[in-house]
Amino acid sequence: MTDLEKHNRMANAIRFLSMDAVEKAKSGHPGLPMGAADIATVLFTKFLKFDPNVPNWADRDRFVLSAGHGSMLLYSLLHLLGYEDFTIEELKRFRQLGSRTCGHPEYGHGAGIETTTGPLGQGLGNAVGMAIAERLQSVRFGEDLVNHYTYVLAGDGCLMEGISQEALSLAGHLKLNKLVVIWDNNDITIDGKVSLADSTDQVARFKASGWHAIEIDGHDPEAIEAAFTEAKKSDKPTLIAAKTTIGFGAPTKAGTNKAHGSPLGDAEIAETRKGLGWDAEPFDVPSDVLDAWRIAGLRSAQARKDWEKRFEDADSELRLEFERRLRGDLPLTFEQAIQDYKKELAETQPTMATRKASEAVLKVINGVVPETIGGSADLTGSNNTKTEQTAPVTTDDFSGRYIHYGIREHGMAAAMNGMALHGGVIPYSGGFLIFSDYCRPALRLASLMNQRVIHVMTHDSIGLGEDGPTHQPVEHYAALRAIPGMRFFRPADITETLECWQLALEHKSGPSILALTRQNLPTVRKEYEAKNLCAKGAYVLKESDDAAQVTIFASGSEVEIALDASAKLAEKGISSRVVSVPSFELFEEQSKAYKADIIGDSPIKIAVEAGIRQGWDRFIGPDGGFIGMTGFGASAPYKELYEHFGITADAIVGEVEQRLPADAAD
Amino acid sequence: MTDLEKHNRMANAIRFLSMDAVEKAKSGHPGLPMGAADIATVLFTKFLKFDPNVPNWADRDRFVLSAGHGSMLLYSLLHLLGYEDFTIEELKRFRQLGSRTCGHPEYGHGAGIETTTGPLGQGLGNAVGMAIAERLQSVRFGEDLVNHYTYVLAGDGCLMEGISQEALSLAGHLKLNKLVVIWDNNDITIDGKVSLADSTDQVARFKASGWHAIEIDGHDPEAIEAAFTEAKKSDKPTLIAAKTTIGFGAPTKAGTNKAHGSPLGDAEIAETRKGLGWDAEPFDVPSDVLDAWRIAGLRSAQARKDWEKRFEDADSELRLEFERRLRGDLPLTFEQAIQDYKKELAETQPTMATRKASEAVLKVINGVVPETIGGSADLTGSNNTKTEQTAPVTTDDFSGRYIHYGIREHGMAAAMNGMALHGGVIPYSGGFLIFSDYCRPALRLASLMNQRVIHVMTHDSIGLGEDGPTHQPVEHYAALRAIPGMRFFRPADITETLECWQLALEHKSGPSILALTRQNLPTVRKEYEAKNLCAKGAYVLKESDDAAQVTIFASGSEVEIALDASAKLAEKGISSRVVSVPSFELFEEQSKAYKADIIGDSPIKIAVEAGIRQGWDRFIGPDGGFIGMTGFGASAPYKELYEHFGITADAIVGEVEQRLPADAAD
Repeated sequence: MTDLEKHNRMANAIRFLSMDAVEKAKSGHPGLPMGAADIATVLFTKFLKFDPNVPNWADRDRFVLSAGHGSMLLYSLLHLLGYEDFTIEELKRFRQLGSRTCGHPEYGHGAGIETTTGPLGQGLGNAVGMAIAERLQSVRFGEDLVNHYTYVLAGDGCLMEGISQEALSLAGHLKLNKLVVIWDNNDITIDGKVSLADSTDQVARFKASGWHAIEIDGHDPEAIEAAFTEAKKSDKPTLIAAKTTIGFGAPTKAGTNKAHGSPLGDAEIAETRKGLGWDAEPFDVPSDVLDAWRIAGLRSAQARKDWEKRFEDADSELRLEFERRLRGDLPLTFEQAIQDYKKELAETQPTMATRKASEAVLKVINGVVPETIGGSADLTGSNNTKTEQTAPVTTDDFSGRYIHYGIREHGMAAAMNGMALHGGVIPYSGGFLIFSDYCRPALRLASLMNQRVIHVMTHDSIGLGEDGPTHQPVEHYAALRAIPGMRFFRPADITETLECWQLALEHKSGPSILALTRQNLPTVRKEYEAKNLCAKGAYVLKESDDAAQVTIFASGSEVEIALDASAKLAEKGISSRVVSVPSFELFEEQSKAYKADIIGDSPIKIAVEAGIRQGWDRFIGPDGGFIGMTGFGASAPYKELYEHFGITADAIVGEVEQRLPADAAD
Repeated sequence: MTDLEKHNRMANAIRFLSMDAVEKAKSGHPGLPMGAADIATVLFTKFLKFDPNVPNWADRDRFVLSAGHGSMLLYSLLHLLGYEDFTIEELKRFRQLGSRTCGHPEYGHGAGIETTTGPLGQGLGNAVGMAIAERLQSVRFGEDLVNHYTYVLAGDGCLMEGISQEALSLAGHLKLNKLVVIWDNNDITIDGKVSLADSTDQVARFKASGWHAIEIDGHDPEAIEAAFTEAKKSDKPTLIAAKTTIGFGAPTKAGTNKAHGSPLGDAEIAETRKGLGWDAEPFDVPSDVLDAWRIAGLRSAQARKDWEKRFEDADSELRLEFERRLRGDLPLTFEQAIQDYKKELAETQPTMATRKASEAVLKVINGVVPETIGGSADLTGSNNTKTEQTAPVTTDDFSGRYIHYGIREHGMAAAMNGMALHGGVIPYSGGFLIFSDYCRPALRLASLMNQRVIHVMTHDSIGLGEDGPTHQPVEHYAALRAIPGMRFFRPADITETLECWQLALEHKSGPSILALTRQNLPTVRKEYEAKNLCAKGAYVLKESDDAAQVTIFASGSEVEIALDASAKLAEKGISSRVVSVPSFELFEEQSKAYKADIIGDSPIKIAVEAGIRQGWDRFIGPDGGFIGMTGFGASAPYKELYEHFGITADAIVGEVEQRLPADAAD
């Protein structure tokens, strides 16, 4: 058998496993795996560094299937290469409940899946983050321990999505030369030919953003091999534009959108078998082919062993630190630093915006947690995410700890997901809360993948003032609290900010958002308490001596207003308690008894938050009083806006008085 | 005075009005107006076709300030040119409560503002839509009536945002040659030099997407004039890359990020006055300069009159139709067509997915409403948004009514906003509901601008099955209901789909989303009723004969399940009513009495929806029973998923039985 024959048989194994699994599931996307099988075969047998027996080897190359609908390509490869999570039985359970072989690759469902993909363009963004993390770690721990490539397979959809521009321009700017994107250039999208909707010269586009680009026939193994060789020599990230035929081998459907997203059908598959000379039954891989793949799977075993040797020989402190960061554990000094600062705050009781509070807290955190990597989407001075410890990362120098992500919220959030997935770093961002809308798909994926990324989102309400409704979050608290697994924190002062930062960092298995003010806030937590009160999501900030007639629930900047209202009510002889609610999600995790206790049984319940009511009925019931927004904000100095929209202590008092039984009124 | 001197004085008037207004407001962005004043002066005095006295003249050129933070550029221009909404008093009230001169330009706050901008890149997307609408209308009503240009001023931020790629590649593909984008290439972003975060060759990038591109000195009026002249001759959209100095004229801050986003300060402004030879007091425009601007404002008055003459001379039917579409009124035949189809449905009672139902409804609508312009983000066959009436719009032929937007949800939604703003067309889209996250910033702006755009979003729950959690909306109902002014419809069958479509079309002052199923649903509305029951947001679908022990609230595909549960409860002797809730927003608009009546006083209240609970406490209270999702979905056939996640009639029955008083149980 010639090399070419062998290659073809190996590639055809991917093709048939893919079309057979889709056929069995009666659902899925055979076209991409069939079209990209040649590229994948060359990449995985000749270039990609990995070891199926130690799939999480830290220095492995990463492969990201950005075109996640082609999941059977990845599952076929992982099976053929000997990843134990992907047995032939799993492939037969493609798209079935509880299988590892979900419709789209899902991180955590099996070793070998580096990230969850499917929403187009996200994988590309993740890969940029992985390549950034590689470079960061390489500078910190040396090329002996960290020196790997990130490969991405992207389709036309990935490249049409706007996030692709953010990702590729950031990668080009940072000269991420160990990033290689293969564009599966098959001319087909779901609706038909790409030319229905796009005429972009992708090669020129990537070059315009500082990429090296190579055009090849994606079915010519020699050309593919030459391209990867060339890419690895480039001092820029590389695009390999590989011309392919979607559904390669299917006699009537290849090259058309009919091969894209549904089973080919028995007849077409039978003809494909004939045409490609494949006698094996569905899910049966001829032993010569399976052997060839399994041997390919062992290709980097020695490199992995060599790496382990180097790691063993490394400085023991370096080794421990490397392992700690990879595990995601915080340094032992972290807790003490938090407590020390908390004590200081109880003494100084500063008045400041929570965005400034966050900066002060970050100064403490960044001093003891060297793996944090900060950044901002071009709002550094507004988000206050840069501290004295975080020099900028530049094209030539990755020793820094701060990334100027540019005006690219979506690319930033997707890259951060990739950094977290890569491991060894804790990425945190800066942006305006309003622009959470720009990066929402990536926020959702962070949550779905249980990744610790932390988003600092400032200017969190009408309190930002003059910039007006285009910049004032109103619905965003509700919208972000809605994402399953997302922790959305809205701290009320610097102590709560500190506690929320602590919770975000200690939450290894999910993302957090800190919504912070532009405007100044007083310290509402006057006493030092070692316990993290925000950890329960909601807690009684001001207790009432007797059975309270009123409970006021509030978050963030409105806690001050709630306390003012409580004082005013006291003057009128009305007893009230104030509950601070920094996190709905953590509150829901508490015991039934705790929750009942916090909600309490005051006859009057009021919630105050400078956003919409949605979600607050949980605390106050549908008949409770809500002081907040019912529509968009406005452009004016912020104090006027609070008056204008009636989010004031007096408004709370008025609402309470309306609700008092007639005989209790003044 | 030479032409150049005159130009400079006119441009300086913009500069000083802008810096003085920002100074007075103690807030705002002087840098862009100062840097772009020369470009704007040439554009508005020599090219832009408009008439301040008839600011909404249908055939005016559109100017979009995509870099909306530079709002004072626009306000200064509108004042100088004689737009009556923008008096000098309004300029003095920049960024104050109730003024027309908001921090960012807000559509509806004064004639002359074509769109709300500020969230970067959106204006660019809107402009693409405006240029599309111009071309569509031009084909329909002739170049005599519709023949205008769309000009955009965009900054680095606009071009870094991913949406810019979606917008420009769509524009390039469609060869929108009457679209001209001026890039205010000032090398500065908020954090500092652009080179901190970006190295893109923007000219090459635009060319890669089929644009013509011209590079000029943005302070050379002759070069600017030549560029616009050249742009107007191009058969492609044109990028004018204009090298400018941010804060032009400010002695120490020009060319730096210090000129970007805060007042320059008295001293700097005084020095700028000296340097530019400007003696006038703040807000005082020398009469020679004001005269020159006012004369420029009259430049197209004759063209406008000529147009009115042509319009008067046009065929009367054409004229009436042109005016009707511009007003946004639906054809008189619309209501009857809806009723006829509704009657037919009551007879045939089809079982079908609501996405298919929507297609059937659209066939009726598109038959009587010729101004609908459909489309899809490359999911035509899945969204079912294309009907026999809607031939595709292609590069060469805009007589069609269907746009293949490509895999560009964000660009699509922003373009649709621009189409609606342009007027004369009713754009509707197609996409997966999950990808509402990709276009959320544009959805929000549609709502803020009160624009009638209609988004068909299919595959609206775990009911899509095998594609898994990356594609299954869970939090999206809550997140979309949260946007103020957005109407989020989730119809339960084809009759509700028809009613929701009717409501969406009749809602001239805001956007609507129709969330539709992939899976089949039975007809639940068996009787013909002329009245649109969905118009009240929620209504009793199944009344109980006696005082109901249970009320079940449901939306969309879960209404069927609620009805099944109700029948099962009846078998157990438990009386229940079922409330269908197609729209939370419309429900909230009803009278207190109606709402109380719908919610009712059943001791047991259950809500069922294949999403998260958030929002439903409004109906069932915090102690009510909720049958739905608590986290992300999974990849499996959909019927198994409904069982797996316990969204079944039996689960509802179980929940009810748990809540029955002990003596009422079997």
